[in-house]
Amino acid sequence: MAPILAGKTSEAVVTDLVGQLGNGLVHIRNPHLDLMPEDNLYHFGLGTKTHNLLAMFSDVKFVCVGGSANRMKAFALLIRKELGFESDENDIADICAATDRYSMYKVGPVLAISHGMGIPSISIMLHELIKLLHHAKCRDVMIIRIGTSGGIGVQPGTVIITDSAVDAFFRPQFELTVLDKVVIRGTELDKELIQELLQCSQEISQFNTIVGHTMCTYDFYEAAVVCVTLLDRLQGDQINTPHDVLVEYQMRPQILISTFIKKHLGLNT
Amino acid sequence: MAPILAGKTSEAVVTDLVGQLGNGLVHIRNPHLDLMPEDNLYHFGLGTKTHNLLAMFSDVKFVCVGGSANRMKAFALLIRKELGFESDENDIADICAATDRYSMYKVGPVLAISHGMGIPSISIMLHELIKLLHHAKCRDVMIIRIGTSGGIGVQPGTVIITDSAVDAFFRPQFELTVLDKVVIRGTELDKELIQELLQCSQEISQFNTIVGHTMCTYDFYEAAVVCVTLLDRLQGDQINTPHDVLVEYQMRPQILISTFIKKHLGLNT
Repeated sequence: MAPILAGKTSEAVVTDLVGQLGNGLVHIRNPHLDLMPEDNLYHFGLGTKTHNLLAMFSDVKFVCVGGSANRMKAFALLIRKELGFESDENDIADICAATDRYSMYKVGPVLAISHGMGIPSISIMLHELIKLLHHAKCRDVMIIRIGTSGGIGVQPGTVIITDSAVDAFFRPQFELTVLDKVVIRGTELDKELIQELLQCSQEISQFNTIVGHTMCTYDFYEAAVVCVTLLDRLQGDQINTPHDVLVEYQMRPQILISTFIKKHLGLNT
Repeated sequence: MAPILAGKTSEAVVTDLVGQLGNGLVHIRNPHLDLMPEDNLYHFGLGTKTHNLLAMFSDVKFVCVGGSANRMKAFALLIRKELGFESDENDIADICAATDRYSMYKVGPVLAISHGMGIPSISIMLHELIKLLHHAKCRDVMIIRIGTSGGIGVQPGTVIITDSAVDAFFRPQFELTVLDKVVIRGTELDKELIQELLQCSQEISQFNTIVGHTMCTYDFYEAAVVCVTLLDRLQGDQINTPHDVLVEYQMRPQILISTFIKKHLGLNT
């Protein structure tokens, strides 16, 4: 799977395509996992002994992730309406209610999960998500990040489908230390899925959508200075956009992904 | 200020001492900050135009931070009881209720803030916290992280006062990229404060407290494998400790810091 994007700064709205897990079952490279008597997904508040993960999650086909718990709940409510799932309630249950680390909502084949801010927080969520999909024997799952980000040279409100994530040096790679070795992983994302999402956005044509890179660093403002300097706006880290406009911006990637999911399920968009 | 620790794995409970801001007012090196017409602390849902930060926060002397919002709320309720602040309510208001990024509680001179998981999430919180303390003209503030972490060669439940944070290569440094340059910052923490906290723990003597290093990396399990391998426990990333024991463990650093704060305020411990 392609590494994860965490470009979280200020202005433009970004849809970061995380990647497709490939055909069939979710592949786990850890040979010890299936030998363990119990796998406790601590930060989800779920486990193989305490929960029937197969019954709960085996029909999942789309996993949509984003930083904010409120935003992912809003997305779950949107997708419930869009997929025509009837409900007497205005609310939706948080599957991870036993913990305050992440929130998780399920609407038919769609799982919506919050991941907090930054690569480590996303990484912990993904470790447990991949194991969850494995335990639940999910097949052909797509994982898509729906997020917000700063922009360089794009109008605020532009939706960006990420083709490649770059690090603080603009390199399309993700560096991590495993034991005492630096391991470098590529950050290219699924080309077919990018084209399909772009096609989807053209059919909606409610807002400007482009394909671009997303910079993903370990800090916040000190990287953001790069963005600000390029734009010659020294006060560019301030979010002055009115709240209702920001809320409308945040809805844009949700609308795009909702349309994409409906297309895949053969529903009328 | 010393860099931040994010050693978040599994077993032992850690009190990570983040550092003391020095005497007097909080120093901000950004010369543009005071020239700005407004500073919007976006992830706190606070701002210099929308809130009277001076009135709200000028008396803050201790800032206690930790990953989980629930845990920091529990700490705020503990410190309210310990400092003898009377209240008719069992609940306490979240100052950051306008956003779901962080939670913040204030009890007299004590501010308790959740920071999520990982260095980037903590970094975003600290950027806004330091600016908040500056705007509120706070003096002589101590910042202490109260957290949980995995342990290497220590019994679960041991409270560790961190003297130095090490990276994935065991180096006592924090590396970050500012523009296109790698900047290295030291990670030693305030020696006097460490000794004072250790002294405090000896007076409580309810649990084992030691001074040690904390490893702080950008991922989760792949580092955790170092810990597990050293301990010869391949299933060491599983948290099997009963819930009530974990809850009691999580209380330990809270009790230590509560005692420390009471001592500083001249209250009976």
